[in-house]
Amino acid sequence: MALIVQKYGGTSVASLEKIQQVARKVCKTHSEGNDIVVVVSAMSGETDRLIGLAQKLSKSPSEREMDMLMSSGERVSAALLAITLNELGTAAQSFTGRQIGMITDAVHMKARIQRITGEKLKEALTDHNVCVVAGFQGIDEKTGNVTTLGRGGSDTSAVAIAVAVKADLCEIYTDVGGVYTTDPKVVPNARKIDIISFDEMLEMASLGAKVLQVRSVEFGKKYNMPIRVKSTFEEGKGTLVTAEQKEMESVVVSAVAFARDQAKITLVGVPDKPGIAARIFNAVAEATINVDMIIQNTSAGGLTDLSFTIPKAELLKTKGLLSDTVSKVGAKKLQTDENIGKVSIIGVGMKSHSGVAAKAFSALAEGGINIMMISTSEIKVSCVVSNDELDKAVKILHDSFDLGKPVKKQ
Amino acid sequence: MALIVQKYGGTSVASLEKIQQVARKVCKTHSEGNDIVVVVSAMSGETDRLIGLAQKLSKSPSEREMDMLMSSGERVSAALLAITLNELGTAAQSFTGRQIGMITDAVHMKARIQRITGEKLKEALTDHNVCVVAGFQGIDEKTGNVTTLGRGGSDTSAVAIAVAVKADLCEIYTDVGGVYTTDPKVVPNARKIDIISFDEMLEMASLGAKVLQVRSVEFGKKYNMPIRVKSTFEEGKGTLVTAEQKEMESVVVSAVAFARDQAKITLVGVPDKPGIAARIFNAVAEATINVDMIIQNTSAGGLTDLSFTIPKAELLKTKGLLSDTVSKVGAKKLQTDENIGKVSIIGVGMKSHSGVAAKAFSALAEGGINIMMISTSEIKVSCVVSNDELDKAVKILHDSFDLGKPVKKQ
Repeated sequence: MALIVQKYGGTSVASLEKIQQVARKVCKTHSEGNDIVVVVSAMSGETDRLIGLAQKLSKSPSEREMDMLMSSGERVSAALLAITLNELGTAAQSFTGRQIGMITDAVHMKARIQRITGEKLKEALTDHNVCVVAGFQGIDEKTGNVTTLGRGGSDTSAVAIAVAVKADLCEIYTDVGGVYTTDPKVVPNARKIDIISFDEMLEMASLGAKVLQVRSVEFGKKYNMPIRVKSTFEEGKGTLVTAEQKEMESVVVSAVAFARDQAKITLVGVPDKPGIAARIFNAVAEATINVDMIIQNTSAGGLTDLSFTIPKAELLKTKGLLSDTVSKVGAKKLQTDENIGKVSIIGVGMKSHSGVAAKAFSALAEGGINIMMISTSEIKVSCVVSNDELDKAVKILHDSFDLGKPVKKQ
Repeated sequence: MALIVQKYGGTSVASLEKIQQVARKVCKTHSEGNDIVVVVSAMSGETDRLIGLAQKLSKSPSEREMDMLMSSGERVSAALLAITLNELGTAAQSFTGRQIGMITDAVHMKARIQRITGEKLKEALTDHNVCVVAGFQGIDEKTGNVTTLGRGGSDTSAVAIAVAVKADLCEIYTDVGGVYTTDPKVVPNARKIDIISFDEMLEMASLGAKVLQVRSVEFGKKYNMPIRVKSTFEEGKGTLVTAEQKEMESVVVSAVAFARDQAKITLVGVPDKPGIAARIFNAVAEATINVDMIIQNTSAGGLTDLSFTIPKAELLKTKGLLSDTVSKVGAKKLQTDENIGKVSIIGVGMKSHSGVAAKAFSALAEGGINIMMISTSEIKVSCVVSNDELDKAVKILHDSFDLGKPVKKQ
């Protein structure tokens, strides 16, 4: 008898048949004596449909209104799943973000969870009812406005709810079997990982692996809530994301992550004076654009070049923001490169093994791949390469660190 | 400078183009110096789509869940209209039933409004923002559950909100030009009525005219809130529904209403003893089936026949409910007739004119139409006739009382 939070994404509730399949899974776990909170996303495609409607009506729709609009999708899937569970004889109730007391800040479309009061959930769980919660949404306490947590926010809803109700486990059901050493579409012998640390998963999510939303992993780490990622449609144990354990260190590199569709912006001939970088990045940060790597070359003749990467989708907006700044800080010009991608190796074992970065650079060089930018942390090494060479770089690194081979039990 | 509540139904917000058309209307009224609360229904077809999904998943979906499901449709249209208004330069905010404090009882799918706190509306109106409210929905204060007001409930939302914010007028925009003397599809020379009393409108709405929901008219009458019914798509003053005025009495009959798809149930050979009718109708009332006319023939040999009409859609359910009761009360059998309709003449002037009913019966008799059941009130006469003869009956009565001719100004 455990208390389990299960989250089902949009592809898992994409049709009535799939909702019925999810309902049968929930009923089975419930009939085994577990209490369950189910968190659902909107039916696959629904959020995009709603955004499409709004964009036809306005170039920059009010974010408050977008949240009102988008939050309707999860209400529909939550109600439909509760209806199906009741039909199967398992007492269930649906709840909105407001009803479970999901209190967020007031930043529409990117709200952050502040706390979850959760009284209604606790009441319903006391009666052993299945609670079906509309993910992705919360409420700004001061104004009563509906907020949403940003793309993939249902993962974060689920882990935060698991923490709030003191669940034993948070299961994230998705359309893949777990977390892989890299994307099997790019590297066919990519291997499912049985267990991975929060820190590694955080890096992977940040660096482009789409299986879990970054903030959900942060929550899991902060409150030590184990997360199991598994497939809605196939049997299998999936991947357990959990606190770091000793045996994890024996694996030097756990996975290769990558992100396509990056863009590089270079400000050429920037005067090398204190405060210039701050002015540039303040302008970008105010628009909540996520700057990734930043590189500043050493100065020559009092001028330097400053490069940074951003998601390609933000390129136009960023160029617009910087057009003023470029002349204000006295830079010569602004160059952009839309043809870049990022590949990263990740592993907690890296901390205790030297030469991992050097091995990666050598492998890429042997493959004839030019590295444009590098950034490293204790547990990852990231390289920016040409987008055209990205797949090849992923394969090379996956092979170099033997990620396709089963992990040796020690 | 007035405070106006405008309600737009599902056909008025059926597409993005129509939402833009509505937005332009709202902007115009706003730019003329008026404060506006707009109440919207779900986009035409959306509520039926959602009900269809639920019915595929369950024969009798939980009514609590149905309310959660259906209330999403109005959120979408409210957000889309607010987005469009902002795009046109008119500051607007959307609000859910909860956000405006629309407190109802706990009867899901047929909730009744208890009160409207309306603080958020008043705040937004103080800033002269247009408030766009999701109609049809409220909240049960005790549980925090979402409730809906039943089909056409957005009319009721609108009038109740108009009362709560002390509006000068409630405008109900729809796909027809106003209230007609009868349905122009049946009688081509049906005439638009300029002004009509709450009582007449109440009878018309109860007796089958679909232009306004009965409860919205009850609200209007109770709080003396004038309601103007007009077309979203055409110019024109529409019809003003208001308190009775002296000149109204000069018109004996104002309109002919009718309802198709009625059914008659007859319990044959019921023992003529006290309490029998109560037992029968308690059984029906508990299922909240709306019994319309009831007729009990005089007793012969201690047995009587008891007939009543209901909407045809409720026939199966009612027969099921009564199957036990028939034998318990000792009735001989239960007969049904699905081929009936109801035609009614309505007018406050009837009170002060005798012979109106007689004139109607004569006209129908001359047309060769058999009257099966009759019921009357101070301001209406209703007759049940064969469904096949219903259109003919409507035409005959419309002609007899000269409703196609312009009203004489007196």
